[in-house]
Amino acid sequence: MAVRAAVAGASGYAGGELLRLLLAHPEVEIGALTGNTNAGQRLGALQPHLLPLAERVLEPTTAEVLAGHDVVFLALPHGQSAAVAEQLGQGVLVVDMGADFRLKDAGDWEKFYGSPHAGTWPYGLPELPGGRAALAGAKRIAVPGCYPTAVSLALFPAYAADLVEAEAVIVAASGTSGAGKAAKPHLLGSEVMGSMSPYGVGGAHRHTPEMIQNLSAAAGTSVTVSFTPTLAPMPRGILATSSARAKPGVTAESVRAAYEKAFADEPFVQLLPEGQWPATSAVYGSNAVQIQVAYDDTAGRVIVISAIDNLTKGTAGGALQSMNIALGLDEATGLTTIGVAP
Amino acid sequence: MAVRAAVAGASGYAGGELLRLLLAHPEVEIGALTGNTNAGQRLGALQPHLLPLAERVLEPTTAEVLAGHDVVFLALPHGQSAAVAEQLGQGVLVVDMGADFRLKDAGDWEKFYGSPHAGTWPYGLPELPGGRAALAGAKRIAVPGCYPTAVSLALFPAYAADLVEAEAVIVAASGTSGAGKAAKPHLLGSEVMGSMSPYGVGGAHRHTPEMIQNLSAAAGTSVTVSFTPTLAPMPRGILATSSARAKPGVTAESVRAAYEKAFADEPFVQLLPEGQWPATSAVYGSNAVQIQVAYDDTAGRVIVISAIDNLTKGTAGGALQSMNIALGLDEATGLTTIGVAP
Amino acid sequence: MAVRAAVAGASGYAGGELLRLLLAHPEVEIGALTGNTNAGQRLGALQPHLLPLAERVLEPTTAEVLAGHDVVFLALPHGQSAAVAEQLGQGVLVVDMGADFRLKDAGDWEKFYGSPHAGTWPYGLPELPGGRAALAGAKRIAVPGCYPTAVSLALFPAYAADLVEAEAVIVAASGTSGAGKAAKPHLLGSEVMGSMSPYGVGGAHRHTPEMIQNLSAAAGTSVTVSFTPTLAPMPRGILATSSARAKPGVTAESVRAAYEKAFADEPFVQLLPEGQWPATSAVYGSNAVQIQVAYDDTAGRVIVISAIDNLTKGTAGGALQSMNIALGLDEATGLTTIGVAP
Amino acid sequence: MAVRAAVAGASGYAGGELLRLLLAHPEVEIGALTGNTNAGQRLGALQPHLLPLAERVLEPTTAEVLAGHDVVFLALPHGQSAAVAEQLGQGVLVVDMGADFRLKDAGDWEKFYGSPHAGTWPYGLPELPGGRAALAGAKRIAVPGCYPTAVSLALFPAYAADLVEAEAVIVAASGTSGAGKAAKPHLLGSEVMGSMSPYGVGGAHRHTPEMIQNLSAAAGTSVTVSFTPTLAPMPRGILATSSARAKPGVTAESVRAAYEKAFADEPFVQLLPEGQWPATSAVYGSNAVQIQVAYDDTAGRVIVISAIDNLTKGTAGGALQSMNIALGLDEATGLTTIGVAP
Repeated sequence: MAVRAAVAGASGYAGGELLRLLLAHPEVEIGALTGNTNAGQRLGALQPHLLPLAERVLEPTTAEVLAGHDVVFLALPHGQSAAVAEQLGQGVLVVDMGADFRLKDAGDWEKFYGSPHAGTWPYGLPELPGGRAALAGAKRIAVPGCYPTAVSLALFPAYAADLVEAEAVIVAASGTSGAGKAAKPHLLGSEVMGSMSPYGVGGAHRHTPEMIQNLSAAAGTSVTVSFTPTLAPMPRGILATSSARAKPGVTAESVRAAYEKAFADEPFVQLLPEGQWPATSAVYGSNAVQIQVAYDDTAGRVIVISAIDNLTKGTAGGALQSMNIALGLDEATGLTTIGVAP
Repeated sequence: MAVRAAVAGASGYAGGELLRLLLAHPEVEIGALTGNTNAGQRLGALQPHLLPLAERVLEPTTAEVLAGHDVVFLALPHGQSAAVAEQLGQGVLVVDMGADFRLKDAGDWEKFYGSPHAGTWPYGLPELPGGRAALAGAKRIAVPGCYPTAVSLALFPAYAADLVEAEAVIVAASGTSGAGKAAKPHLLGSEVMGSMSPYGVGGAHRHTPEMIQNLSAAAGTSVTVSFTPTLAPMPRGILATSSARAKPGVTAESVRAAYEKAFADEPFVQLLPEGQWPATSAVYGSNAVQIQVAYDDTAGRVIVISAIDNLTKGTAGGALQSMNIALGLDEATGLTTIGVAP
Repeated sequence: MAVRAAVAGASGYAGGELLRLLLAHPEVEIGALTGNTNAGQRLGALQPHLLPLAERVLEPTTAEVLAGHDVVFLALPHGQSAAVAEQLGQGVLVVDMGADFRLKDAGDWEKFYGSPHAGTWPYGLPELPGGRAALAGAKRIAVPGCYPTAVSLALFPAYAADLVEAEAVIVAASGTSGAGKAAKPHLLGSEVMGSMSPYGVGGAHRHTPEMIQNLSAAAGTSVTVSFTPTLAPMPRGILATSSARAKPGVTAESVRAAYEKAFADEPFVQLLPEGQWPATSAVYGSNAVQIQVAYDDTAGRVIVISAIDNLTKGTAGGALQSMNIALGLDEATGLTTIGVAP
Repeated sequence: MAVRAAVAGASGYAGGELLRLLLAHPEVEIGALTGNTNAGQRLGALQPHLLPLAERVLEPTTAEVLAGHDVVFLALPHGQSAAVAEQLGQGVLVVDMGADFRLKDAGDWEKFYGSPHAGTWPYGLPELPGGRAALAGAKRIAVPGCYPTAVSLALFPAYAADLVEAEAVIVAASGTSGAGKAAKPHLLGSEVMGSMSPYGVGGAHRHTPEMIQNLSAAAGTSVTVSFTPTLAPMPRGILATSSARAKPGVTAESVRAAYEKAFADEPFVQLLPEGQWPATSAVYGSNAVQIQVAYDDTAGRVIVISAIDNLTKGTAGGALQSMNIALGLDEATGLTTIGVAP
């Protein structure tokens, strides 16, 4: 029996990536596709890479259109998910790829998003401690942000094993699709090709409280996060460099052991052999996470490098993985650990 | 019953792409993987994007290692396939992704490749007139070159319908993976990023006689080809601009009609709606071909734009599509028309 | 005595490139800088690479602001130059980097630009036959389009020497800055990186009649042009592949001789040694033109490859070179043939 | 009276960039150009962007060839400079763009470079405290590494003003030219385009002790450095994110004031206005350094972003700036703060 899925916001990058993955999911039947300003257009004009859906036409994002599905994915601008979700029945699985239901602390939400807090839904990062239990049978899922996915997976084992101090320093580079499909001058190809630049420096990026939430939960104590995102000249991918000061007695071996243990049974996380380093090209279009860890005994820090595809594991793949768990399907159904390279 | 497949030359770009596709092919079981200088290495170090094969170790390319498979794919340097193929039984399907058996004319082979002609095998471009018949049940397949794939598909309908004169002019841009994985200074990232440059200008490129062979067959007369390849700052993709002077009486409508007819039932060729143009990003990692055609009544020429992924439809996907036909499987098994974008 | 120069439209790519060059011009003093929607902004926010001008503030584009200069450069949207130019005195040198005054044929203008023809000004491509004479002492200059610059320089020697037939076929790749700084979805970095795509196919591009005008003048007869522009994943540069069928008796030597003669004394055109091919990286940020020519005796065509920087020789550098001639300065003042590579 | 300059190692990226700048230096006359494996070749084939030098031929790197110049620039592989420098007279200014004479501590040299320490020369980073005094009249100059240039300029003001604690955490992205022109598989365009990856993680990069040396000198105490370099898909540029924990009492204002003071009179350092962030594109091909600073009061850290062109300010421009000081010329002669963008 097929799972019938609707996608609200099918014209953007997150929606397009989700459709790419849904087309390959053996249990899913693609239902309604909606847009706002693009309603009425052929999908072939908006997402020309999705040939099997080229003749589908976008409908407006209304409760009527979204009714009658088993799963509704929301790929809407921040702040719009709650109103739509409310109109969908409690029996429908709603997977929100926006930020609205990620944060537990209403104050954090209001500070970083500037609107009333809509609530908190089960968090779609199965690899975190207790992650799968929270998703099993869930009817509402908040898909993590792309940066928090890369960073939380990189650092939670160190915090869970009490290896590092509670001040994390993170610098990450993201491909431009993370900034969305709305045309803005600084995102023009002419501007981004050949250039690296930061943004949201000094704690201003909205993903910072989400990282703090995840790492503090793993540590069992309050962790501070210094997060600097940068824009890299590539369409996809996040490479995160996360580090924290090692606690006394930590060794390269104890660090390695903690990471081997944390990821031993994870279908999508590849802890690389020593000597090999993550590259975003290796996870291009895949749901895999590449991780490598180093202990710098001179500087006294544990450094973790993680690479994900921001649109796949960082958004749409993570959404699908969580949906699989919520529906009781095999977690890896319709997902791949095979990247497209070179 | 699984088809057991070996890949000779698994460390290069063609071999890596083939493995990526074979991993998703439901009827294939991946057998021996061989290399030359890389024999003995973990595949994870050579093809880090193929996570499920990371722990496989390359074996040397010998008849013993390649024995006992249903299909052997050869991804070897030009001129090396014949010696290997001879040692494989006549009952084994051998799919050569090199150039050795593409050309029918021994003189052309010797002029462009500088070695004795090894012979001619059934040609793996099913979309050409008679293409599928030549492949059904074949035990030897010569996979076309990447440029000839893009160009032959673009122009054969015009020649088959007698719409254009017998002088074709082609300029094509290719991603750098077409030049292979051997480290050469002019292929360094520092050199190719931000730059376009031509090579093999003036009829010197080895793919020229292959285009002539295909187009002349479609036209039923000898076609000349002026072919200029250029190197573009992208890893994958070919965008070919092919044109020829229109014959008297040709109209935009008659051109469009010929292309609609030629590709009406083709699973991998998308003749785009009028007003939409091919882009290599739309076929990234897919076996699809995007085609659009224009009639310039001022210049009196028919212009055809085609976009493929040089590694997929242009090499490994084309190989797999032909293998499917030869083995009597559904032609599209294990292949996709969904690109990875943006 | 300094030449005082104003730039109308200083916030775009053409205006920015012109300012970059003017800053290095020893005889020019930069006067008023104007914008439309950007009037009132610091130039440092709009053109952050022009550090010496960071604190300059854009003024509105009015006759008052532009008054009192020796030279006024217009980097305005097509169709806006005439109204501004009329308000400037006849004694002021006005250099239009837009299209308004390039075409001689009013019908061509109206067909391709859809507005009344404003007139024809001396054409700023000094390397064309008679090019310098037309510019000496001129008070009005129409700077050529970027594609017509690359293509006219590539083919005029063949036409002037009567080597080729009157049907030119041109395919050119351009960096994205040629499409300007206005934010449009298809120009986003996410869309253009890793992708090649065509536009304006089939004679629709506005630069086509300009090429016809130049090549027909060189040939002394009416030349047809089939022109296909493509967008390449790089910020700058044009690589043009231009070809035409060789006339009887033409040889590789006669072609080479014609090009050596045509460019023997040109300060900015480098006819490359045989065996070396143009690359856009070699002319990055420079006013140089790299040209190589081939005679394909099998296909019977002369193929010419040319590389320019679309913003430098193709726009702002060409403007400055023409200004130098008009003012009686050394033509190369303030310009360079040194690219920025890699 | 012209300064006659020789360049040993003219075929690589550092040598090519130096020649690009020397061609624009009004006081310098370019003398001997040498290479090793490339001796005997036309420079036009090796550095096609340097049109004015296209017909120069590389000579072998010998004392005879390098004799008779006022300045000799060494752009040689690490460990080769000492032997060459010894054969040049004490009266000749020798500017080493390699690492050989940068480190003061012989143990650091031996640990990171694996060969005997050759000595320590005056360090070519004029902006450091005491930097110009060390260079005035010098006859030997060690040009800093590219990463240490970006990082030392970013953090020395914070250490000199005692604003931050002695543990610096640095993540930097570099364009591929920083890895040189030797053809290695991981530097192929196919590998680097679309990908970010780290290297030398965990304190292994050779530039680490150089950063420690500079920052410890500024701090007056021993500073530890956690340095993670990453390779970005662009030819040029370094974007460094450097941070350290703020000392008690530090405020956003006190941080800003320290940086304004440190760079008030620096001709090449642009402390950006608040709200604007560095981008490598803005310094492409220029000797400028863009810096912005933030104080994250939640995380309690000072974060400094710096952008340079690794080949210009990071290598050849820095070399020329130091040469100017050593020779008593205006420090900015022949150098620019104007980038090539977009």
